[in-house]
Amino acid sequence: MTTTTPDQWIRDLFSDRANRTGPGMVALDPKDSAKIIAFGGGYPDADSLPIQDIAESTRIALERDGEWALQYAFGTGVPELVDTLLDKLRRDQGIEATRENVLITNGASQALGLIFEAFVDPGDVIISEAPFFLGTVHRCRASGADVREIPLDDEGLDVAALESTLNELKAEGKQAKFLYLVPNFQNPTGITYSPERREAILNLCKAHGVPVLEDDAYYDLRFEGDAVPTFYGLADEPGQVMYCGTFSKIIGAGMRLGWVVAHPTVIAHLSGLKTDAGTPAFASHVVAEFTGSGTLAEHIGTLKDVYRHRRDVMLAELEAKLPDGCSWTRPTGGFFIWLTLPEGLDCADVAAACVEQGLQIGIGKNFFTTGKGAENIRLAYSFNDDEEIERGVDILATVIRDQLDSARN
Amino acid sequence: MTTTTPDQWIRDLFSDRANRTGPGMVALDPKDSAKIIAFGGGYPDADSLPIQDIAESTRIALERDGEWALQYAFGTGVPELVDTLLDKLRRDQGIEATRENVLITNGASQALGLIFEAFVDPGDVIISEAPFFLGTVHRCRASGADVREIPLDDEGLDVAALESTLNELKAEGKQAKFLYLVPNFQNPTGITYSPERREAILNLCKAHGVPVLEDDAYYDLRFEGDAVPTFYGLADEPGQVMYCGTFSKIIGAGMRLGWVVAHPTVIAHLSGLKTDAGTPAFASHVVAEFTGSGTLAEHIGTLKDVYRHRRDVMLAELEAKLPDGCSWTRPTGGFFIWLTLPEGLDCADVAAACVEQGLQIGIGKNFFTTGKGAENIRLAYSFNDDEEIERGVDILATVIRDQLDSARN
Repeated sequence: MTTTTPDQWIRDLFSDRANRTGPGMVALDPKDSAKIIAFGGGYPDADSLPIQDIAESTRIALERDGEWALQYAFGTGVPELVDTLLDKLRRDQGIEATRENVLITNGASQALGLIFEAFVDPGDVIISEAPFFLGTVHRCRASGADVREIPLDDEGLDVAALESTLNELKAEGKQAKFLYLVPNFQNPTGITYSPERREAILNLCKAHGVPVLEDDAYYDLRFEGDAVPTFYGLADEPGQVMYCGTFSKIIGAGMRLGWVVAHPTVIAHLSGLKTDAGTPAFASHVVAEFTGSGTLAEHIGTLKDVYRHRRDVMLAELEAKLPDGCSWTRPTGGFFIWLTLPEGLDCADVAAACVEQGLQIGIGKNFFTTGKGAENIRLAYSFNDDEEIERGVDILATVIRDQLDSARN
Repeated sequence: MTTTTPDQWIRDLFSDRANRTGPGMVALDPKDSAKIIAFGGGYPDADSLPIQDIAESTRIALERDGEWALQYAFGTGVPELVDTLLDKLRRDQGIEATRENVLITNGASQALGLIFEAFVDPGDVIISEAPFFLGTVHRCRASGADVREIPLDDEGLDVAALESTLNELKAEGKQAKFLYLVPNFQNPTGITYSPERREAILNLCKAHGVPVLEDDAYYDLRFEGDAVPTFYGLADEPGQVMYCGTFSKIIGAGMRLGWVVAHPTVIAHLSGLKTDAGTPAFASHVVAEFTGSGTLAEHIGTLKDVYRHRRDVMLAELEAKLPDGCSWTRPTGGFFIWLTLPEGLDCADVAAACVEQGLQIGIGKNFFTTGKGAENIRLAYSFNDDEEIERGVDILATVIRDQLDSARN
């Protein structure tokens, strides 16, 4: 310790996992996100947060159950929240489950983290759609997983590519631990899996004994068309699918409440790995009151109108302002549009130029583990108002034109 | 998948870590703890929870910062909470730190979990006081650590035993990742480390390049005597000590808010491993308001009176009712008394007989990784009122007498 700097001395003590993961974000002020146009993150709209209703739900929950809202809540979740969630899943998602199938987590993020802990040793194979959710990309790196990426088209994951990957794995004598996907308004592309595609994927996975990890964070935010059955609902039995969801997009991310619905054996082992002494009873009682009172259903209706409108504004702006050679997806729900740049441009250069003008965008490369995505950008229309969306697309269009010009010269 | 049961098929996919850890607690109703006399758990007193003040703090926090209390808070913590915590640590604990030294976590439990992830690979050595905190015993198992337990006396960890362990490790060519201890009102024994003992331990650890993991969950709940300097405060520089604390014992465990104060390099890597998208902004803003408004200092005074009284009641009851051959500690703060049974009795048998009569106690063996503690019991006086403490000790005394009689015959 005296022979090295404190910093180096500590680094030498880190675990393999810490070294694989590297340092994370440190002191950040969320309020800074209001100072830029944030097409980069998947932030809910601040003005649509149910602040008054949450204040009222807190008052009621503390009055009725204060002693339990401020006490430890060990196990798989506060029963009041588990039961209202089970009702919501039955009513909205068409998912039939019982208390033994549910673990309430600190956002869907913790659910995904626990599932990686429970299934993935370094070198283990997991299969993922690509591009895929940043948080899961991060977990793949941290876990040391051998990731097999399957490309997406407008109807979901490419079934032929999945089948050949599954056959390759069989030939290699390797068992994939799970297939990760976001079937509704996918993050980052915004696409939604068709019913036929879901059936085909589920059957393939069943035949190869690979569970599906279904991350359905955006299910409730469908702007048009009918809901598509979940993988969990399509499965013969709960062992085949682990279904993750969250209240972050429909109530508030600051609550940090999500869930996983799965086979009781999975739930019990995730609970064993969840060593944070329980998901917060305080937020759980507040959200149980908010959700159970019916306020949630009404609030989701409002959110759909807000986000549908913002999607329409951004699509119209892109149509009007982006140069030829750009193409993008048209999501039927959720937060995201996936943009493909004209040939010769790199998303990192475009992002750097945009940041200088106060616009943050999602860098395509970050949504793959393979270095693909150089020509892609993720645009979130969820956080900014009409005027900011217009200004943001102005900046983006100008930057793309400038970089096209300099690319041509 | 078709050749085995779904249950077995899933088990075959689990990681080494999941198999080491095993299943955890599933659906539990915290309200059941009110149906028994709970000397077993470290639950805060329900009647002393600041329900009204938290309701008021929530109203104020949501009115002022609602849009941020319900939004994501990535990074190391909501700045408003980090800053009020830094003030509290300076004022109460005498700890000087900056934002770069702090990570806000989902209770101290998550802080400990992240530190194990950041430092411990299977087979790595960690040194611990013994007996020690159940949650840390659990993490030792889950991490596959090679645990070296050091016995405790009334002044803390046995320095001679620590020194010989450190020398053994040097001889084995092994580097301990950290020394874990709870210096104030230790869990489970209730003892407090003397200033001299702290100095000696810190110097030994420094000489051997072993960081100290200081778990100070009960610091604020001192009933008598002067505060003893923290290891973090005694250290020459922050690299030597990781200091964990929590709001669970002084505000409410349902908030799930704790912290770790450490070297910026440690904080950055813990933040990298904290993949739950941030500690809840909602609870953070509420607790920042509650703590910053001065309500916390006043509330801690109330709690000390409540727990001091309960300690006195339980000590008097033990004195009056337990048979000869029993001995126990006399804590100057915190929640716990550590009882040693007369020779020939086993804590598991005593616990089983107590449960039948509606009394839950802490089984001594659970606070070691080595199978020691068969003659010990942890008694928490924190959760039950005078009448319940009296009834509980009646049950305990009767069970011990009965088992002594049958042991003699």
